[in-house]
Amino acid sequence: MELDTAKGTRDIFPEDKIVRDKVVAILKEIFELYGFNPLETPALENYETLSSKYAGGSEIMKEVYTLEDNASRKLGLRYDLTVPFARVIAMNPSMKKPFKRYQIDKVWRDGPIKLGRYREFWQCDVDVVGIKSVAADAEFLALASAFFKKLELDVTIYVNNRKLLNSLLEFSGVPSEKQEEAILSLDKLKKIGIDGVRKELEEKEVPDESIAKIISLFDYNSSSNNETLERVGSFLENKEGLNEMKELLERAEEFGVKNVKLDISLARGLAYYTGTVLEVFLNDNSIASALGAGGRYDKMIGNFVGSSEDIPAVGMSFGLDVISDVIKLKSKGAQKNSVVEVYIIPLGTLPDCIKIASELRSKGINTDLDYSGRSITKNLNYCNGLNIPYVLIIGEDELKKGQSKLKNMITGEEKFINVEKIIDEVRK
Amino acid sequence: MELDTAKGTRDIFPEDKIVRDKVVAILKEIFELYGFNPLETPALENYETLSSKYAGGSEIMKEVYTLEDNASRKLGLRYDLTVPFARVIAMNPSMKKPFKRYQIDKVWRDGPIKLGRYREFWQCDVDVVGIKSVAADAEFLALASAFFKKLELDVTIYVNNRKLLNSLLEFSGVPSEKQEEAILSLDKLKKIGIDGVRKELEEKEVPDESIAKIISLFDYNSSSNNETLERVGSFLENKEGLNEMKELLERAEEFGVKNVKLDISLARGLAYYTGTVLEVFLNDNSIASALGAGGRYDKMIGNFVGSSEDIPAVGMSFGLDVISDVIKLKSKGAQKNSVVEVYIIPLGTLPDCIKIASELRSKGINTDLDYSGRSITKNLNYCNGLNIPYVLIIGEDELKKGQSKLKNMITGEEKFINVEKIIDEVRK
Repeated sequence: MELDTAKGTRDIFPEDKIVRDKVVAILKEIFELYGFNPLETPALENYETLSSKYAGGSEIMKEVYTLEDNASRKLGLRYDLTVPFARVIAMNPSMKKPFKRYQIDKVWRDGPIKLGRYREFWQCDVDVVGIKSVAADAEFLALASAFFKKLELDVTIYVNNRKLLNSLLEFSGVPSEKQEEAILSLDKLKKIGIDGVRKELEEKEVPDESIAKIISLFDYNSSSNNETLERVGSFLENKEGLNEMKELLERAEEFGVKNVKLDISLARGLAYYTGTVLEVFLNDNSIASALGAGGRYDKMIGNFVGSSEDIPAVGMSFGLDVISDVIKLKSKGAQKNSVVEVYIIPLGTLPDCIKIASELRSKGINTDLDYSGRSITKNLNYCNGLNIPYVLIIGEDELKKGQSKLKNMITGEEKFINVEKIIDEVRK
Repeated sequence: MELDTAKGTRDIFPEDKIVRDKVVAILKEIFELYGFNPLETPALENYETLSSKYAGGSEIMKEVYTLEDNASRKLGLRYDLTVPFARVIAMNPSMKKPFKRYQIDKVWRDGPIKLGRYREFWQCDVDVVGIKSVAADAEFLALASAFFKKLELDVTIYVNNRKLLNSLLEFSGVPSEKQEEAILSLDKLKKIGIDGVRKELEEKEVPDESIAKIISLFDYNSSSNNETLERVGSFLENKEGLNEMKELLERAEEFGVKNVKLDISLARGLAYYTGTVLEVFLNDNSIASALGAGGRYDKMIGNFVGSSEDIPAVGMSFGLDVISDVIKLKSKGAQKNSVVEVYIIPLGTLPDCIKIASELRSKGINTDLDYSGRSITKNLNYCNGLNIPYVLIIGEDELKKGQSKLKNMITGEEKFINVEKIIDEVRK
C-alpha cells in the first residue's frame, strides 16, 4: 500500500502549526475583545442546506464534496462558514440580536489545486447580525486594525460602499444592463491599471461617453479620503452611499483607526455585499493577496431565511494561510520547529532530572527530557534539529554542586546556574 | 425548505463553546508544557489508508463516512486521530524520534446516536513515538494529573499493564484460547462487580479452578499500590509486567503524581495496547465515563507502517465532551453565555462611548456597545439574557462629570466611577 494524503489536502507539521496556532489565538483574543462569541457548526450539512437557492450559488455546488450517510441521507461538507451561520440564524429566530459570532474552522472545496491552494482549508469568519448602523461596519475596521497591530504587520484597510459605487456608475451613464460588468472591470483597477479598465469596458461595449466619465472619476486614487469624498460628492445626485461612507470614516476615526483608505473602485466581486466593502493589504506589497476582506450584506440572510424583510449583517474573513505565510516570511531564521524551550539531558540522573523537569513545567516552561539514555551528541543533534533554544545537561557532579550546565543553542554560550535561575535566563 | 443540522450533528452555541474552548486552551497549554508539539492532519483521508488491515479494524469501517472526489478517488472522513498519526509516521521515516505530538480535532463516525453521542465529535490526542522507556508512560500520568489539577477536578488515574494482566491469567491457568474473553470480563469488574465477573466467566466456560484463582486474585482492589504489587508478585513467575508496573509507579512518584491507583483488572478492551493502560475517573463519581484514557501500543504503528520491528508508542486521549459537561455541572449558575465583560449603553453619546469602548478593549476588557440607540430597558434585557456581568450607562451628564454609571448585573449594585477605575472593578 502506497500511503499518501488525499489529493488537495496536506499535513501541517509543528513548524507551520505553531505559527498558525499563534495567529488563531490572536484572532480569538481580538474577536472576543470586540464582543464576538464563539460558535461551532458541523462540518457536515444536509445537502439541501448547502444547495439552497440563496446559499452560495450554483457555481460553488460543483465543488461541494457530497456523500450519503448509512440511511442514504444526502450530505455535503460545508464550503464556507456563512451558509451554516445563516442556517443557525434561520433555525433560531428567537436568538437575541444583535448576534455577534466568530468561527475559525475548516471548509472544503473540491476545486482546482494551485500553489498554496488546497481542497481542505481554514476560514476565520467574524460577523454580526441585526445592526443597521454603519457604526457596526466601522467596528470591523477597528477590529482588523487591532489584529494586524498585534501581529506587528503594517497594513492598509481599503474601503468602499456598494451604494456609492452604484451611484457613480449611474452618474457615468452606464446602461443598467452593463453595470455589473463594469463593476467587475473596476474591481480589477489595482491589478490591471486604468488603461486595463478602459480596454475591458471598450470590449464590453460600454458607451464611449460613459467610459470617459468613468476614467475621469476613477483615475484619482492617490488623493486623501476627504478629497475623494468632496470630489465625488460634487458630481452625485444620489448621496446615500456617499453619506454612509462619510459616517463610516467618521466612526473609524472615533475608534482611533488611522490606516483606512477609501478606494472608490473596490467592489469585492458581485457577491452579496450591499453597502460597505473592505479589503486589507500589506503596505510593503510583499504578498499580493488580501489578508482579510468583508463587508455588509443586508439581503443574503433574509433571503436564505425566507424573510420578506432585510436581515442586516456585516462581517469579515481573515486569511489564515496568507497571514501565517507573512509571519513566517518576517520571522525568517527565528522559526520554531518545536514548542520546547528547555531540553534536559540526564547523565545517569534520570530521577533527579524528572524532578527538575517537573519544577520547570510547574513554572510555565515548556520542558522535555531524554528518557532513552542516549549520548550527549545524539541528544544535542536532536535539539538542533528541532531548534530547541536551551539544553540543560545534568550529571552527578552538577547535582552535588546544585548547579546545572545550561547551553544556549543559538549563541552556543554555556553557563553553570541554579535551577531557580534557569527560569529567568529562559524568559530573558 | 425545512432547515436542520445533519442527523447526528449539532451546533455548539456560545454558552457551551466558551467552556469547550477553555478546556481546549488548557489541554494545549499542558501538552506544550510537557513538550508535545501540535500536528494537524486532514479530515479527509484516502479510503485505502482508513481501511488498512492494521488501522482501526473491520468493525469501524461500517461507520466511516465515505465519498468520492470529482475525479472519483475514494475518500473517507477520519474516524480517529491515531490512524492519521500512524500514516504521518509511515510517510516521514526520517522524522526525528522521539516524535511527541498532540492533535485536538474532529472525527466522524456514522454509528448509533445516543444521548450525548454524536456522529461528528472531538478527540484530544497526545502521543509519543520512539521511546521504549516506561518513564514516557509515567509522563502521561504527570500530564493528566497536571491537567485535571488546573481544572480543579479531583480525579484518580487507574493504571494497569497488559503484560501483568496476561501473566495473571496465565497464573490462573485460563486456557490461552479463553484469555481474551476472560480479559473482556475482567475489564468490566468496576461496572459489574466480582459476582458479575464470575457469572460471565462461567458462561464463557472458563474452568472452575481458574475462576476460583481469578476471584482470589482480583477481589482485592481496595489495597494500596504497594500491597497489590507485593501480593501479585508473590504468585507470579513471569515478572516482566510486574516490573514495568513497579517502574511506572516509581517514576510517577518522581514526577510528583499522587493520585495513581493500580487496578489489576483494567484492560481497556482488546485494542492495541501492549503495556501500560490507564483511565481517569472523577473521585465523586458524578459522571460515570472516563475523562481520559490511553496506554502503550508498541505493535500498532510498526504493523501499519509495515516494519518488521516494533515502533514503540504511548499516548492518551481526553474526552472533550465529558470534561466540558463536568465543568458546566460544577459552575452551575455562574455559566457564561457571552465573552463580553462590559456592555456600554450610550444615551446620545455614541462617539464618546466608542472612544471609551476602544480604551477598555485596549486594556484587555472584552467590551461591547449598543449602536442602535434602543432604550435602556431593552439594552438591560439584552445584557441579562447574555449574562453580561457589567453594564456602563453613559449620558451627557456622566461625560461632563467624567464619571459613568457602572452596574453590576449580578449583585445589582451601581457605582459612579472614572473610566480608569472600571478596569480594576471588573478585574476584581
